Amino acid sequence: MRIDLNCDLGESFGAYRLGDDAGLMPYITSANIACGFHAGDPSVMRHAVRLCLEHGVAVGAHPGLPDLQGFGRRAMAISPEEAYDLVVYQVGALAGVARAEGAVLRHVKPHGALYNMAERDDALAEAIAEAVARFDDGLALVGLAGGALVRAGERRGLFAAHEVFADRTYQSDGTLTPRAHPQALVPGEEAAAAQVLRLLQEGRVRALDGADIARRADTVCVHGDTPGAARFARRLRETLAREEIACLPLDGRAG
Amino acid sequence: MRIDLNCDLGESFGAYRLGDDAGLMPYITSANIACGFHAGDPSVMRHAVRLCLEHGVAVGAHPGLPDLQGFGRRAMAISPEEAYDLVVYQVGALAGVARAEGAVLRHVKPHGALYNMAERDDALAEAIAEAVARFDDGLALVGLAGGALVRAGERRGLFAAHEVFADRTYQSDGTLTPRAHPQALVPGEEAAAAQVLRLLQEGRVRALDGADIARRADTVCVHGDTPGAARFARRLRETLAREEIACLPLDGRAG
Amino acid sequence: MRIDLNCDLGESFGAYRLGDDAGLMPYITSANIACGFHAGDPSVMRHAVRLCLEHGVAVGAHPGLPDLQGFGRRAMAISPEEAYDLVVYQVGALAGVARAEGAVLRHVKPHGALYNMAERDDALAEAIAEAVARFDDGLALVGLAGGALVRAGERRGLFAAHEVFADRTYQSDGTLTPRAHPQALVPGEEAAAAQVLRLLQEGRVRALDGADIARRADTVCVHGDTPGAARFARRLRETLAREEIACLPLDGRAG
Amino acid sequence: MRIDLNCDLGESFGAYRLGDDAGLMPYITSANIACGFHAGDPSVMRHAVRLCLEHGVAVGAHPGLPDLQGFGRRAMAISPEEAYDLVVYQVGALAGVARAEGAVLRHVKPHGALYNMAERDDALAEAIAEAVARFDDGLALVGLAGGALVRAGERRGLFAAHEVFADRTYQSDGTLTPRAHPQALVPGEEAAAAQVLRLLQEGRVRALDGADIARRADTVCVHGDTPGAARFARRLRETLAREEIACLPLDGRAG
Repeated sequence: MRIDLNCDLGESFGAYRLGDDAGLMPYITSANIACGFHAGDPSVMRHAVRLCLEHGVAVGAHPGLPDLQGFGRRAMAISPEEAYDLVVYQVGALAGVARAEGAVLRHVKPHGALYNMAERDDALAEAIAEAVARFDDGLALVGLAGGALVRAGERRGLFAAHEVFADRTYQSDGTLTPRAHPQALVPGEEAAAAQVLRLLQEGRVRALDGADIARRADTVCVHGDTPGAARFARRLRETLAREEIACLPLDGRAG
Repeated sequence: MRIDLNCDLGESFGAYRLGDDAGLMPYITSANIACGFHAGDPSVMRHAVRLCLEHGVAVGAHPGLPDLQGFGRRAMAISPEEAYDLVVYQVGALAGVARAEGAVLRHVKPHGALYNMAERDDALAEAIAEAVARFDDGLALVGLAGGALVRAGERRGLFAAHEVFADRTYQSDGTLTPRAHPQALVPGEEAAAAQVLRLLQEGRVRALDGADIARRADTVCVHGDTPGAARFARRLRETLAREEIACLPLDGRAG
Repeated sequence: MRIDLNCDLGESFGAYRLGDDAGLMPYITSANIACGFHAGDPSVMRHAVRLCLEHGVAVGAHPGLPDLQGFGRRAMAISPEEAYDLVVYQVGALAGVARAEGAVLRHVKPHGALYNMAERDDALAEAIAEAVARFDDGLALVGLAGGALVRAGERRGLFAAHEVFADRTYQSDGTLTPRAHPQALVPGEEAAAAQVLRLLQEGRVRALDGADIARRADTVCVHGDTPGAARFARRLRETLAREEIACLPLDGRAG
Repeated sequence: MRIDLNCDLGESFGAYRLGDDAGLMPYITSANIACGFHAGDPSVMRHAVRLCLEHGVAVGAHPGLPDLQGFGRRAMAISPEEAYDLVVYQVGALAGVARAEGAVLRHVKPHGALYNMAERDDALAEAIAEAVARFDDGLALVGLAGGALVRAGERRGLFAAHEVFADRTYQSDGTLTPRAHPQALVPGEEAAAAQVLRLLQEGRVRALDGADIARRADTVCVHGDTPGAARFARRLRETLAREEIACLPLDGRAG
């Protein structure tokens, strides 16, 4: 039994520092590196790739909406064609940085509003999957477990990695409880670790309304921007180790 | 005897149209496609790559300074490291777009102020050559004939393409007469074609002050943004054909 | 009887030219000048203000979403607070340019997606009205005739200018037929001029489904980016002159 | 005897936080608020203005080069006309935010590379002074004591505020020792406070090479981005209080 732990990385920009990139590296297996549209810049991207190489963490692209001020979190009415184009561009840019550093790009995970928009709009999900596949069909595409993005990826022949969340609660349709909801967050690190463990061992998660739903879990999202993020990541690693669950990067290319 | 004719392409942005991309395609052999920093956007880049594929024109990256408002023409005090990073990023982005379209990137030519800055600063020239070589050492690097950029490329083991100009006059040190100078432009299409022909057949060009200087010519810059650009390009092709000089893309990878 | 004819202006950016600013000036009475977020830059803004001064055209701000690539036409999920802030900033910037040129800012008309979003979301409309009023409550606020923006402006005590369209058809609820609809455009210049005339003289417009609806008309939107725009504007001026309808800028401050 | 203590403020951007704005407010008398080109955004600007109102700190504009990634610290080859335009735009934008909050703009201090470029290029200094004066000739213009910017401001009839530095060493021509120099910084808080005191009481400062030079001091730059900034500011205030030197905002309008 294996699982990937992914975390957003390289979200600084110019003089602006964001996130504890180095602190989380020992605990994650895949990094989603911002590509310059919602965060990150060419120099930040290079440093993030180097950090991944040093820690044996898989390098992934984290393309986002062209909205630095909004950190890619504000939905924008872009067409599927625009989504296709901005994913190809950003994935190419990060793949270029990786190549120059001797690293290999392994996966793509859309960021923020782009991720959420794709889950609600099949045409966007398909455009993103098409962009990834046309750039390199050996890349894994990360999306919400059981959601539109992984379905689009699977239809396109990609290795689609179903992503689950440790610290977010679920609704009975398998989507996450919106952040504005008072019970959006799983209360406490123990419950969060338990939610992950049950997803891995039983393939199920208890929704807020009590429904017990089935979800595949290929990768767990580890948030890097919350206080205590590194501490929780270490604890999760320990819990997984006790249960003899290996933490390994996504293995799309080999699969 | 052969020569490459290169032209800047894909300089539109969003709703803004610039240049007669389609009109020049029949007459050129290499396109320098803007990469989103000084001009171009992901959709414009895709259209430019497609146009190249349709016309059998070699696809090249045209990385520039991060200055859309100034069209990359305003010198900026960037460090060699910043130059390295922004070239890797932009070349990677365009290579990604090309790859998704089934095209292959063939060369890199820095744009505007970045090109000029590199000619005056060896550290910048070396950083750019290093960026190109680390991304893909089979790429050709285009720079001013006999200048700092091609020298840096050659030191780094790249195929460095010496670029000459049809419509610009030269100074005795082999650099171009600045645009502000009253005699910056070669007077008339016939003289411009003759300057190219002599560079190809004799490897020499007459500078403004009368000096006769030696210059290698691998590629001729064809400006796409001047009125009558397509007409001059066609005329140049006819002149070259009469002299049995083949117009072919740069052949760095094979060379 | 009087009417204002408004037109978007100053939509160029850097090296990119857009619109026939000078050609339309003789026929309009108010200019909506882009403020640098969706189009325009500080130099373009200054030239646009000077053009207004030369032609006695009223200077207005045309704030838009921060999306140059999308020309402010892509809806973005911004909060009312973000809308407030970006309107204050852009109106302030243009008012600054106007002041430095000796001109006075007269009105504000949100651009593109911001205009449309405000018509569908009262909280956004109120935030925009609040921004205008807090900057200068003598400014006119232009919005869709009978729509959310003018209602919000009126509640806030602003002079709210009801805007009608010459070349767009209406739906029975008073909104414009979406552009994607095959009958979105009024067929022909004569019909367009007639639609304006009836709005002015009878305060009514015939919707696509045959309903005859009442609409107040303080200002007519003259599109500057369509072929023949200047010709239609001249024709409309002639039609209005024949009917002895004066073309004058909005007169909020005096009213 | 009086002195103004100015500090850069509002340098956050979107999700990115920078500087301890609130921590320094009790110790300064004037704030230079970033205007969105090199740092700051419309929301950050509003919060900065409110902070000034709460603490009775004078509101100033801190216009910079259009280079967010470089934080406005990379020199750019802009023309005097471009400098004029970007200063008018940014000063107008901040004046708009201030006006909407019921605050009044009091001064303008160019940021980073723009400040340094103006000190080395009279045409740029004059363009900046012209921009400030045409927007509002009651504004103070802050520049290096005895430098090109204050001279240009004085020629234009502005109140030009001569700025001195507490923590930077001087060269014998009155310019600051470049940051790269090993002795660029005054060693220790006591020496820094002493340098300010001597400038105020004797109008002189000892340059690195031993020369004793005369400099007028209207305002002292307090850096907000260094560790211990607030502590040093408090110490400086105490030193000034002991010497009965009043800390008050610039008083150009009254002067």
